[in-house]
Amino acid sequence: MDRISTERDIVALLGDWASGRGPLYRKLADALTRAVEDGLLLPDDRLPSERGLGEALQVSRATVVAAYQELRGAGLLSSRQGSGTRIASDVKVPRPTADGRVPGGTAMTIFQRLIDGPGELISVAVAAGGAAPELAVTLRELVRDDLDELLSGPGYHPSGLPELREAIADYLTRNGLPTAHDEVVVTTGAHQGLVLTTELYVSQGATVIVETPNWPGCLDVFRSAGARLVTVPLDEEGPEIHTLGTVLRERKPSLLYVMPTYHNPTGVLMSAARRRRIAELAAEHEVPVLEDNAYMTYHPESGVVPAPLAAYAPPGTEMLSLGSLAKAVWGGLRIGWVRGPAEIVQRLSRRKVLADIGSPVIDQALAARLMPRLDRILADRSKELGLQLDHMDALLRNRLPSWRWQRPDGGGALWVELPGVDAMAFAQVAVRHGVDVVPGAVMDPDGGHANHIRLPFTFSPEVLDELVHRLARAWSEIARHGPAPAVQVVV
Amino acid sequence: MDRISTERDIVALLGDWASGRGPLYRKLADALTRAVEDGLLLPDDRLPSERGLGEALQVSRATVVAAYQELRGAGLLSSRQGSGTRIASDVKVPRPTADGRVPGGTAMTIFQRLIDGPGELISVAVAAGGAAPELAVTLRELVRDDLDELLSGPGYHPSGLPELREAIADYLTRNGLPTAHDEVVVTTGAHQGLVLTTELYVSQGATVIVETPNWPGCLDVFRSAGARLVTVPLDEEGPEIHTLGTVLRERKPSLLYVMPTYHNPTGVLMSAARRRRIAELAAEHEVPVLEDNAYMTYHPESGVVPAPLAAYAPPGTEMLSLGSLAKAVWGGLRIGWVRGPAEIVQRLSRRKVLADIGSPVIDQALAARLMPRLDRILADRSKELGLQLDHMDALLRNRLPSWRWQRPDGGGALWVELPGVDAMAFAQVAVRHGVDVVPGAVMDPDGGHANHIRLPFTFSPEVLDELVHRLARAWSEIARHGPAPAVQVVV
Repeated sequence: MDRISTERDIVALLGDWASGRGPLYRKLADALTRAVEDGLLLPDDRLPSERGLGEALQVSRATVVAAYQELRGAGLLSSRQGSGTRIASDVKVPRPTADGRVPGGTAMTIFQRLIDGPGELISVAVAAGGAAPELAVTLRELVRDDLDELLSGPGYHPSGLPELREAIADYLTRNGLPTAHDEVVVTTGAHQGLVLTTELYVSQGATVIVETPNWPGCLDVFRSAGARLVTVPLDEEGPEIHTLGTVLRERKPSLLYVMPTYHNPTGVLMSAARRRRIAELAAEHEVPVLEDNAYMTYHPESGVVPAPLAAYAPPGTEMLSLGSLAKAVWGGLRIGWVRGPAEIVQRLSRRKVLADIGSPVIDQALAARLMPRLDRILADRSKELGLQLDHMDALLRNRLPSWRWQRPDGGGALWVELPGVDAMAFAQVAVRHGVDVVPGAVMDPDGGHANHIRLPFTFSPEVLDELVHRLARAWSEIARHGPAPAVQVVV
Repeated sequence: MDRISTERDIVALLGDWASGRGPLYRKLADALTRAVEDGLLLPDDRLPSERGLGEALQVSRATVVAAYQELRGAGLLSSRQGSGTRIASDVKVPRPTADGRVPGGTAMTIFQRLIDGPGELISVAVAAGGAAPELAVTLRELVRDDLDELLSGPGYHPSGLPELREAIADYLTRNGLPTAHDEVVVTTGAHQGLVLTTELYVSQGATVIVETPNWPGCLDVFRSAGARLVTVPLDEEGPEIHTLGTVLRERKPSLLYVMPTYHNPTGVLMSAARRRRIAELAAEHEVPVLEDNAYMTYHPESGVVPAPLAAYAPPGTEMLSLGSLAKAVWGGLRIGWVRGPAEIVQRLSRRKVLADIGSPVIDQALAARLMPRLDRILADRSKELGLQLDHMDALLRNRLPSWRWQRPDGGGALWVELPGVDAMAFAQVAVRHGVDVVPGAVMDPDGGHANHIRLPFTFSPEVLDELVHRLARAWSEIARHGPAPAVQVVV
């Protein structure tokens, strides 16, 4: 059986090959060469036909022909009658170390942008901005008042700095979920909380129920643990309760993963009624639940936000809650947490020791001072974000009137449907116009949502102007001209 | 087959059960109850005889009899003629989540101290102190000069903040290992560097060669990946070259893990000649090498320290180098790194994304400012540590003249042999005298070094005085009086 089966596999593997300068065919050849050097393509792997790959990448057949020809010349490809184009049998295979990618994972094309560093692209892959102004103020206070005492200890706190655990517990208690300090473990962002929880609950072959669409960074964590992902679609109140009941009954999952406040990428806020039903279902089927409330970007004060899902849990239900300061305060702070039963928090702390012994202390002390002000910080940020959302909304209505979206309840992005267009093909065009778009298919374990994109509005009005301008140009190219010319020299 | 086979298994599982207040038999009963609640002891597991457990825990048989009796009364234990004492068949078993421990691991008894928080014990399990004075000075400079620019970015840097990667590369270059910035990935302490490297190189059932003795925190990382550990003993220049050659040839290992500067726990500095030979052997057998130079506590300026092992590597050898600021600057900073070939560093960055997306940024900016001063900071700390080492040395000679040790080349601890005494038994006595000692057997995958302990000297003279005083009392108890009385009421 061929290892590489579809054009889509190759597209995922090439990532944003088309960015940067130089002729397209050369960039394609370089990207294929890198894939071989990285061990992503192996000797005798079959490549798609020139026409097929051209369509998938939204370039002309001639571009692929030229790229393949260059690689044949370099001895990297062989083509034989009836056997198609293959990686040459004698290419040098790298050492059989793991390459760091998750088999079947879809998030790395997004995160690779962070690894490679910033280019000229407007990347809408990661919707993150600078720090809230309170951060600098608070750090100055900390340095003035508490630094010497802070630095006198050994600095290892696998469960988290005691004053931060206390402050997080107070915050959750204020927001409707009574919590004690030993029910909180501090993690490097909510992401690490997800990783540690997965290590406890998800073994090879276990079933995890997830909403769809979903954030690929989370899906890859489950995939990397060997989970089978079973999806539940969303309606405007959260995951569809009927489907959820069926899969809970039939699939005996090890974990149910939901994003009540807010769902990423759709921005849906789970209703109080839906929270109650899900908590009941979880109790009935004895399924542990992980709720992820880290997507707290735009969080309108006007809206009524129910208490965390865990507050609805009948006694004995095993429910864990993820939170984070990344969106409200700053991603670079890397402060997240898991809230759960004290004995589970102990277990998570042991995994935390194994992962990195404990998080840095200065950031934790800083976070402890910020937590009491978090509601105020969120409200201030949301005012600005609401204006950005309005601006984006108006721009899109004006420049891309055929696109369809709903105003999100919260979060940081629009979930946009591109009528009649494959979003992966559109992403290929968009990157050549200077925008790095995340197509819907990488956010759906079943490969659905193929004509959706996630479009963050967390940029300044000037960047939003330029962003929509570029998107409109890409849209007009794909709508009117079809694939790009064979050799597009951009010098 | 019985799951719990030996007294030693139970001792490891109970951890430091004897600390705190109250009668010994009650504390033992409580610890066994917790082990059942945590799912470490399961229904029908067989417990050791009263006499056997008493000897292993260094308490009288009567203490164990009283504990077992209490647990039988509570329905937790059953004893039948000829079948010994077992956990009752009908105890409630916790949910089958992983409990966070590493199967066969030995580090958690050490780290559990960090999770539980500080007590009245002098814990010599983790040899860490407060921050170097340069840290506060540098943080104040950073806040004054660079904060606003730092906080303006999105804050995600999976490979590390660019200026820190640059500063680490410069530091390594200055110290004999020419390095470019893209050959460095920043991690949450050297520990996370070890974890990410293990994810790349060590799959289930793979063989990893390690020195013995070894630091259990590292061994547990390999164990948790399912590695088979093969040991090589040390001589005064590093791992024995003859044994190393044999296991490299015969065991086809996936990784060789060594600690050249300095070895933990023995404090041995690997000689230049030994480095050269090991690099040649690794090249000959095509085995990737991970060198761990994080144990940079006492680092005497007078001694000649060879370049890192990687500097001796013939071209094409795959060699990774771990480093850290934990010992020289502060553990609470949690800044470590892996240095290796750029393409391996890319792979490690992908694993870093999957683990936590990236380390906190403020600490990284701080570390970038500290790196150029690191040699100076190390020299200053080493002066103080040298005095502490002298003080400890004199105290031990005076109070515990029968103990045997060699002055370490560097690091933070003495590796002490207790002539004729099992160190695990001594640790049980020491904890009742207020010292938490790490016995040698948990540092040896083969269970050897049973009469050694690791004894950090990284404490103030006053703490060292009290520490040795308590150790001497414990030693005199075990030497003269045998096991403790049955019911020792400490109110």
